[in-house]
Amino acid sequence: MRPLITLTTDFGAGSPYVAQMKGVILSICRDVDLIDISHAIGAQNIREGAVVLADATPRFPPGTIHIAVIDPGVGTSRKIVYAEIGEQRYITPDNGLLSMLASQNEPQLVISLEGDEYWLPGRSHTFHGRDIMAPVAAHLAAGLSPAKLGPRTNTMQLLNWPQAETTSHGITGEVLYLDTFGNLITNITSSDVDRIGEAPSLVVECGGQQIRGVVSTYGAAMSGEVVALFDSQGRLEIAVVDGNAARDLHLRVGEKVSVKAA
Amino acid sequence: MRPLITLTTDFGAGSPYVAQMKGVILSICRDVDLIDISHAIGAQNIREGAVVLADATPRFPPGTIHIAVIDPGVGTSRKIVYAEIGEQRYITPDNGLLSMLASQNEPQLVISLEGDEYWLPGRSHTFHGRDIMAPVAAHLAAGLSPAKLGPRTNTMQLLNWPQAETTSHGITGEVLYLDTFGNLITNITSSDVDRIGEAPSLVVECGGQQIRGVVSTYGAAMSGEVVALFDSQGRLEIAVVDGNAARDLHLRVGEKVSVKAA
Amino acid sequence: MRPLITLTTDFGAGSPYVAQMKGVILSICRDVDLIDISHAIGAQNIREGAVVLADATPRFPPGTIHIAVIDPGVGTSRKIVYAEIGEQRYITPDNGLLSMLASQNEPQLVISLEGDEYWLPGRSHTFHGRDIMAPVAAHLAAGLSPAKLGPRTNTMQLLNWPQAETTSHGITGEVLYLDTFGNLITNITSSDVDRIGEAPSLVVECGGQQIRGVVSTYGAAMSGEVVALFDSQGRLEIAVVDGNAARDLHLRVGEKVSVKAA
Repeated sequence: MRPLITLTTDFGAGSPYVAQMKGVILSICRDVDLIDISHAIGAQNIREGAVVLADATPRFPPGTIHIAVIDPGVGTSRKIVYAEIGEQRYITPDNGLLSMLASQNEPQLVISLEGDEYWLPGRSHTFHGRDIMAPVAAHLAAGLSPAKLGPRTNTMQLLNWPQAETTSHGITGEVLYLDTFGNLITNITSSDVDRIGEAPSLVVECGGQQIRGVVSTYGAAMSGEVVALFDSQGRLEIAVVDGNAARDLHLRVGEKVSVKAA
Repeated sequence: MRPLITLTTDFGAGSPYVAQMKGVILSICRDVDLIDISHAIGAQNIREGAVVLADATPRFPPGTIHIAVIDPGVGTSRKIVYAEIGEQRYITPDNGLLSMLASQNEPQLVISLEGDEYWLPGRSHTFHGRDIMAPVAAHLAAGLSPAKLGPRTNTMQLLNWPQAETTSHGITGEVLYLDTFGNLITNITSSDVDRIGEAPSLVVECGGQQIRGVVSTYGAAMSGEVVALFDSQGRLEIAVVDGNAARDLHLRVGEKVSVKAA
Repeated sequence: MRPLITLTTDFGAGSPYVAQMKGVILSICRDVDLIDISHAIGAQNIREGAVVLADATPRFPPGTIHIAVIDPGVGTSRKIVYAEIGEQRYITPDNGLLSMLASQNEPQLVISLEGDEYWLPGRSHTFHGRDIMAPVAAHLAAGLSPAKLGPRTNTMQLLNWPQAETTSHGITGEVLYLDTFGNLITNITSSDVDRIGEAPSLVVECGGQQIRGVVSTYGAAMSGEVVALFDSQGRLEIAVVDGNAARDLHLRVGEKVSVKAA
């Protein structure tokens, strides 16, 4: 069975920089399968990268190596880490990209990349994805022991991840992420909501919009209607049927969201 | 030889939802090749999806499994089908995505997906591409018999596909599709046109534009000139040399097109 | 080991035309790995394609076959060539796409594709990427000798590639390329600059902007600041920290750039 490496970056869909990383990997470990997770992460948007990694990477076979390059600190003293979380393996700048994953599963092993034995010679100051992360991932895929990459560490940079709060008045949370359809994905989960009432009797408020009831699918409402529903990850989502909620409602990441019983 | 699965969606180029589907497939059938056809289909644009599937999928090796997720009815009672058309295999919502293919080749086998033995446990109401279509495709790739997926059916949703008409005055058709260069692709074919005259003597009309002659290549005209030619599928196409015909001529899908002998 | 084919086009990210090429390749040579370099090259922008090919393709394993389809002359008498440059193999229209590679390494072998034995039957006038280049690449991947493709040739179309000039007053060059972050990549290299002074003491001028010093990383400056640094290829680059230099400074490809000792 071939080893599997995924790539997640903010280089832009179609960026040839991704191909440079793939060329480096394939030159070290020719017999590997490469999968793109996304290269459309907002430029330097670590939070969005953290959500995408947490949603997508646990779907992959155990042992998959995931490289993530959203790296505004490239060339500064920020570290690069190798981490094992759940059954997956990660190589990323130590800048918070693994925060959401680490909040869900305690990392079993974190190594700080040191020494340049497995890095490209003559590496740049501006593209460690190609010059450090890609060759390290390729050597791991070819069977290198992670212990060869550097010392174990107990600290990793973690973002202050906004948590929804449940009180006697209901739940308050915020918009965490906009998906490609402009749907507003919040940090309120279906299990939070289940504790306060039945879906049809709830009221969701966000940015002046008051939405009555949580539907189970877009098809349950009319075109143009604003609806609340649970997305495919079990997160509360605000959407405009056949529309783009972020644009149509002028709402963005960080906007407060509340859920109450009617 | 590894089995081959392709993916076509309206999730947007670079969407991480595609990667979730790939993770699911690879977790069930690790030894598979995955090819993206397009994730830039217009949101919920079943007609565009149907054209893209008809153009691209017959180019693949026999037995390739094609998943298409343009699925505005997800979570409603719309069915999901497995179909064998030509030498290819398809898994799509039963919403017309296979209309153009089915108009070219009678489907040999159509199965309505029922029972959830091969679906992901705890599936969502909003992402059947990941929770039903991806795992079913992976099981088929791993050798499952399609008969295990559900009962045979004789009915499939088909779009009312606009056909060009040939009369004694010429041919009338319409714009079917805009390609990524803004070229206007029509439902008039080179074999339709061959019956009414020689290319240089024809007049093509569309949206007030009158184009004299059908050229064989963009290079045969000057920059900025409006030309008619046959695209790589043998369909009549209206283009602006070095420009974007849809934008420059303010024309869109459904616009009437006629071809006459001069 | 599977053979490896890469694809570079101006079809647009997510274009289904790329998938048609992949289907053709896989139908001829099923056991191959396919890698996308970029499909976001500007429409008919041969110069950008030439830079991307020169940056990305030498990173790949020796013997990789690279197809590039930026082909404004399709259907005219322009030739298609097979070329071996460095350790890589290329199939492209003979329109200058290999200019930058050929300026770095003398091509060892150039063949002009003639005869249609390995082309698709009934080929179009508008899509030689699918009808000629894809099948030829697949036959080569399956082991065909390049000598079967046509006669050797000594001439290849080459662009007049702008070279930086070093005088006693400093270096003058120009903007060669905009990357996906809007950074302005110039034709001035770090080895050019090393000859005239130390990084902190240099002055870079471009489009009325005067930048003091060359920094080693974006992180060394404040958000919004205009900086000069060397990109991951060793080329002088002008960037706006956390911004988009091309848009923010209203600069474009061809803009003159100079470097002087302060």
